[in-house]
Amino acid sequence: MEAPTMRHRFEEYIFGLQEEIITSFETLDPNAPKFKRDSWQRAHQGGKGVSGVFFVPPSTDGSPGQQTILEKAGVNISVVHGMLPPAAIKEMRADHSSIPYDGKTSLPFFAAGISLVVHPRNPHAPTVHANYRYFEISEKAAEGEGTSKVVAWWFGGGSDLTPSYLYDEDARHFHTTLQKACNQHGSELYPVFKKWCDEYFYIVHRQETRGVGGLFFDDLSTEKHARLSEDIKRPRSSEEIFDFIKAVGNSFVPSYLPILERRMSMPSTDQQRRWQLIRRGRYVEFNLVYDRGTKFGLKTPSARIESILMSLPETARWEYMTDMGSDLESEEGRLIAVLKQPVDWAGLENL
Amino acid sequence: MEAPTMRHRFEEYIFGLQEEIITSFETLDPNAPKFKRDSWQRAHQGGKGVSGVFFVPPSTDGSPGQQTILEKAGVNISVVHGMLPPAAIKEMRADHSSIPYDGKTSLPFFAAGISLVVHPRNPHAPTVHANYRYFEISEKAAEGEGTSKVVAWWFGGGSDLTPSYLYDEDARHFHTTLQKACNQHGSELYPVFKKWCDEYFYIVHRQETRGVGGLFFDDLSTEKHARLSEDIKRPRSSEEIFDFIKAVGNSFVPSYLPILERRMSMPSTDQQRRWQLIRRGRYVEFNLVYDRGTKFGLKTPSARIESILMSLPETARWEYMTDMGSDLESEEGRLIAVLKQPVDWAGLENL
Repeated sequence: MEAPTMRHRFEEYIFGLQEEIITSFETLDPNAPKFKRDSWQRAHQGGKGVSGVFFVPPSTDGSPGQQTILEKAGVNISVVHGMLPPAAIKEMRADHSSIPYDGKTSLPFFAAGISLVVHPRNPHAPTVHANYRYFEISEKAAEGEGTSKVVAWWFGGGSDLTPSYLYDEDARHFHTTLQKACNQHGSELYPVFKKWCDEYFYIVHRQETRGVGGLFFDDLSTEKHARLSEDIKRPRSSEEIFDFIKAVGNSFVPSYLPILERRMSMPSTDQQRRWQLIRRGRYVEFNLVYDRGTKFGLKTPSARIESILMSLPETARWEYMTDMGSDLESEEGRLIAVLKQPVDWAGLENL
Repeated sequence: MEAPTMRHRFEEYIFGLQEEIITSFETLDPNAPKFKRDSWQRAHQGGKGVSGVFFVPPSTDGSPGQQTILEKAGVNISVVHGMLPPAAIKEMRADHSSIPYDGKTSLPFFAAGISLVVHPRNPHAPTVHANYRYFEISEKAAEGEGTSKVVAWWFGGGSDLTPSYLYDEDARHFHTTLQKACNQHGSELYPVFKKWCDEYFYIVHRQETRGVGGLFFDDLSTEKHARLSEDIKRPRSSEEIFDFIKAVGNSFVPSYLPILERRMSMPSTDQQRRWQLIRRGRYVEFNLVYDRGTKFGLKTPSARIESILMSLPETARWEYMTDMGSDLESEEGRLIAVLKQPVDWAGLENL
């Protein structure tokens, strides 16, 4: 009997993680509606997914809706395969020189990932996002051939926190939890991926980061990595990298749930709700204007739009020249300051 | 005394139009706050603008806000000049072969325009957008030289209507008003610019237009035009084109105000408000993902972000797999049908 492939092992892992994460939210708020599980298949092409989505249907009689802890959330899995056109292969070769390229041949690809966004209702509770994915490119399969040789594979992912109101202890807890998960696998991972996260989740036109960051990484494989030193310990084999992915994936619940628990019942004002909705507008701006996954997804002809845009908040707000956040001494202004100048949250913890 | 240049005449025209449009909204709702006039200057580069923005500051005591006719609106003018880099010049030469290009020389440009977006509060009243602009490219000015020869100029613009609930008579009124303004200047203008509008305001990933359309055009000059026949009457000289621009600009108030007046006091339900906010979400998606002006503006280092994003609605909503609009027999579904398959509204009127 052959050993299970990484495809199957990763798929199994993310389905288990999806279940664990959804269960932890459902346990926290037993009176709320359950996450809606939704399976889909890609028409005409290989692919399937399982969405786990939380939302509260609006009341139809004008009464206020149910005051659940979460407002909108999605914990989604997709597993797709198909053919990658030469233009896409060319771009990938920058980080994966092992992929053969002749400018005209499409190659089979496989991609599996878990992607989640959680928007809680309370303005004091931060939004969180995480994504872990595995990608494979194979040799062109001969006619009728079942499997073909993998010519390149890599893992990517990360997790980041987006508060409307800044609580230093939340940012520190989130970062140190991720840092601990990273440090078991090499001392360079956390600082490099933390910086990458601040760079990636940057709203250029606002000159601010989306939130207080976390981790972001891509292209983890046995190949040379553009951001990691060659001579420092890091996960290098597929086994070591998969172990690292599981470590950070498993850290999601302990990184976020304690924060949600201490914020979810805090009293809040209309003004704080207003600020939360303005910050959600910024979240929409980042996702629609800059996020590579969203942009790539929207351009993919048979992509499942509802899954791609599940990351958007239920409600967002835009005010012209809003006065909220402009006073740097205010609670809103304190957040803006750290979005303009990212903080070494885990470093603060160690002081 | 020299005759006034087109720059000055166009600038004067759009400032007058801005005043007329703002006054017409202020007269309609005398108890609402006035539009906020806001002048700005571009730091480090030539440029100025006058924003006229309507919004209602949220109440701070939890009471419902003032029920004005408009919810959010901007009627903005910008007049900017500077140097256009070679890459931008190269792109423009496709439609303006008279611009000299050597791959390394920047050229002086001048751009003036009026841009407006009006989001009324009532779900039965449509959102409207209009934009009219004039662009000039000059020869590289010699050191210390005051003015330099204009090597290319063109006008662009248009106006389009975005209802949440479809009223055929509104769409017909809007289109026939624009059609009449066009037809004085050539019979081909309305059908060509109507089609261009349907193509431009298209949300690819939703496979639907943003609204029921109107006019969209660009690159109107004495040069050959990619979409207009050479042998059919159309405005060709700068005088004729300016007259056409004034005709369509002046048609804004008569094209829209009668629609707003008949919808602004209609009773509406929470469900209709919900659908309006979902449609506003689509408006945000179009503007952030596809609109060329917005994308160009967000990439311009010293651009005024608040003016560019004033087009966004005050509030927008995203529901995962919403059931609203999916029943094609419902009022919401009737809208979707015409967004999937644009209608010849002016043609219907003539039946």
